Amino acid sequence: MSPEDRSPEPEMLAKSIAQKAKAAAGRLACLQTGIKDAALLAMADVLEARRADLAEANARDLEAAREAALSSALIDRLTLNDKRIGGMIESLRKVASLDDPVGEIWDVRVRPNGLTVGRMRVPFGVIAIIYESRPNVTCDAAALCVKSGNAVILRGGKEAIHSNRAIVEIMETAGREAGLPDNAIQLVPTTDRAAVGALLRLSQFIDLVIPRGGKSLIETVVRESTIPVIKHYDGNCFVYVDDRADLEMALAIVVNAKTQRPGVCNAMETLLIHEAVLERFLPRAVEALRVKGVEIRACDRCRAVVPDLLVACEEDWRTEYLDLILAVRAVGSPEAAIEFVNTYGSHHTDAIVTGDYKRALDFLRAVDSSCVLVNASTRFSDGGQFGMGCEIGISTDKLHARGPMGLRELTTSKFVVLGSGQLRS
Amino acid sequence: MSPEDRSPEPEMLAKSIAQKAKAAAGRLACLQTGIKDAALLAMADVLEARRADLAEANARDLEAAREAALSSALIDRLTLNDKRIGGMIESLRKVASLDDPVGEIWDVRVRPNGLTVGRMRVPFGVIAIIYESRPNVTCDAAALCVKSGNAVILRGGKEAIHSNRAIVEIMETAGREAGLPDNAIQLVPTTDRAAVGALLRLSQFIDLVIPRGGKSLIETVVRESTIPVIKHYDGNCFVYVDDRADLEMALAIVVNAKTQRPGVCNAMETLLIHEAVLERFLPRAVEALRVKGVEIRACDRCRAVVPDLLVACEEDWRTEYLDLILAVRAVGSPEAAIEFVNTYGSHHTDAIVTGDYKRALDFLRAVDSSCVLVNASTRFSDGGQFGMGCEIGISTDKLHARGPMGLRELTTSKFVVLGSGQLRS
Repeated sequence: MSPEDRSPEPEMLAKSIAQKAKAAAGRLACLQTGIKDAALLAMADVLEARRADLAEANARDLEAAREAALSSALIDRLTLNDKRIGGMIESLRKVASLDDPVGEIWDVRVRPNGLTVGRMRVPFGVIAIIYESRPNVTCDAAALCVKSGNAVILRGGKEAIHSNRAIVEIMETAGREAGLPDNAIQLVPTTDRAAVGALLRLSQFIDLVIPRGGKSLIETVVRESTIPVIKHYDGNCFVYVDDRADLEMALAIVVNAKTQRPGVCNAMETLLIHEAVLERFLPRAVEALRVKGVEIRACDRCRAVVPDLLVACEEDWRTEYLDLILAVRAVGSPEAAIEFVNTYGSHHTDAIVTGDYKRALDFLRAVDSSCVLVNASTRFSDGGQFGMGCEIGISTDKLHARGPMGLRELTTSKFVVLGSGQLRS
Repeated sequence: MSPEDRSPEPEMLAKSIAQKAKAAAGRLACLQTGIKDAALLAMADVLEARRADLAEANARDLEAAREAALSSALIDRLTLNDKRIGGMIESLRKVASLDDPVGEIWDVRVRPNGLTVGRMRVPFGVIAIIYESRPNVTCDAAALCVKSGNAVILRGGKEAIHSNRAIVEIMETAGREAGLPDNAIQLVPTTDRAAVGALLRLSQFIDLVIPRGGKSLIETVVRESTIPVIKHYDGNCFVYVDDRADLEMALAIVVNAKTQRPGVCNAMETLLIHEAVLERFLPRAVEALRVKGVEIRACDRCRAVVPDLLVACEEDWRTEYLDLILAVRAVGSPEAAIEFVNTYGSHHTDAIVTGDYKRALDFLRAVDSSCVLVNASTRFSDGGQFGMGCEIGISTDKLHARGPMGLRELTTSKFVVLGSGQLRS
């Protein structure tokens, strides 16, 4: 084996990638919006022109996945069909059209001594994204990082390595030709897990880590990282139907929140119903949900009203099913609903349906979640739906970014002070 | 030994404190501003009335400190004289007068489907403050946490335990009588270090940890904590005097930044001078600084101009002296100055003195620090000077809060959505 054939030590590899990213970050931070946008549009054009190359790379991943007998769900997530490649191209153009958050100055005050003090929005520097099988995350995450002036280090799942290499090669080349600095977008080229561990200790070069994927991936990253991490945990989302709700509206919201797309983090997992409307509301809700194929697990109070419901156990109130299963429970008051949500929910997204002004405001204030809705489906908790253009995920942390994270949440700030010779006395 | 005399296990103690704080946090989050302000003013009145009790408690700490032969600097920091007690009282009244950040709704958008989406400022929940010897931190930190709707767990240095107990007993009692929930303010009652370690693992109850003190304290907290930490590290602050500077202004800023209060984090530690003005500026700067007793360590270029300067070594560019010592270096261009600051500085506070518009803006954008100033002394990097009212410290992190942290930085946000029955299609 010649020296060139040896794969480098994971620590050396990680350090080399991180150093190159840091160097790129300094130049990206000062890049004009026009150049960043031109780069994103060029990437979209080249992706369009090289759809066949991408499909070929993806076919290699899919073949390996079938050989390894991966589940059909995993193979589906891995697949880049024409529609998904189109989605990536569209998303690049969309990100190019968004306002650039970098350089924005806000919260400006003129102090009595004439100092002008404000805050300037600036990129973090280097962001590492650690994710699982979906190769389109590669494109979306890189686009958002570039637009927000950050260098990005991507580490996708090993099943998607050929697809990811092809996507990054296209984006990197097209971006560089349009004026991005070298190494603005880098993919960790190996599937060696030790390289990730080494990256997560390079806090002198990497400013932020965003893990996207299952709970065990996130927990591993949090445990190993000495770099700040923004976590994207589960959504065990609740809808509370108050006794002062418009029950027609409540029924429509409940069905939408549970069934419009049950496999995602902002779908409803537990329904709370005020006991004063239990007899009027529960049978209708059960009927409408069963038509959509939903299995219902309920508390004893509910089962006294609709006897053929399955029994819910303690664990059900804490479970994110991501499936056509719903836990249902009667509560005695809005306060009890708030307490139940705060105790058993995952602090992601929760909704109240009510016509009562005070209860609506109390629920908004007291429910300790990243997104709280009144009279709307939990499915709206999403950067696109909120008008943020795009999202890199939904943060379940309280620090820095909470809820859908868009371009602005990929930046930090600094105080800028314009003086004319002021001295402190 | 009777069972009551045994000190509880550190894990049990920490858990009990944290659980009580969490319960208080739920009630504090919904408390009206008027009640919080009344509580702070009541605390100020009781502190005023009980100055003698506080002085007595402090005398016990001072006696123990003298017996343990602590340094005079430490004893000075520990001392609560009349003026410092007055400062604590003033600071409580000041915090009461500040705007309440909680409940503010901003960034409101009405979406095409009629959904109204905004962000609401809400308390974190429970904040733990880990600090060293100064007992007035106990009062300031508790006041800021209460006003921002957070329950606080305080862990001060063991040297100040009697003073801290007296302060917290006064604040807790006066606050409770004025309407604060029980356990809004708690002091870890033991000086056992294991109790801190146990607290730092209770991420299910505690939302944020803020260490205040020396580097080793902060590093220990970061290493042991599974809860998010906002760090307050060193300030190795730079001033760059450009060749297009008003040299009179530059001289005044340099002297002020170095000597107005040399022992604090926003004092200048390194001076960079454009080589084109080295001969005109350096001798005058040396003279003015020497009058103030400053020792100067310089690069070879500078020593060619003023030969009797001490020699600076590589380590000097990285050192936070916190003393009347200054490192001085010549640079060839504004770009070289920016690179030097980003390489050797601590990303805390840096200033440029220049009359050139483009250079000023480039420096503001490219220097990667929490606070960047043009034509003003670094000593202004301070929450009070910036008009934030009060500060809990100066964050050197990029996540969540960067630079001086006031009340608003002790809050997080949630998305609030006002609907009228919207469904996602």
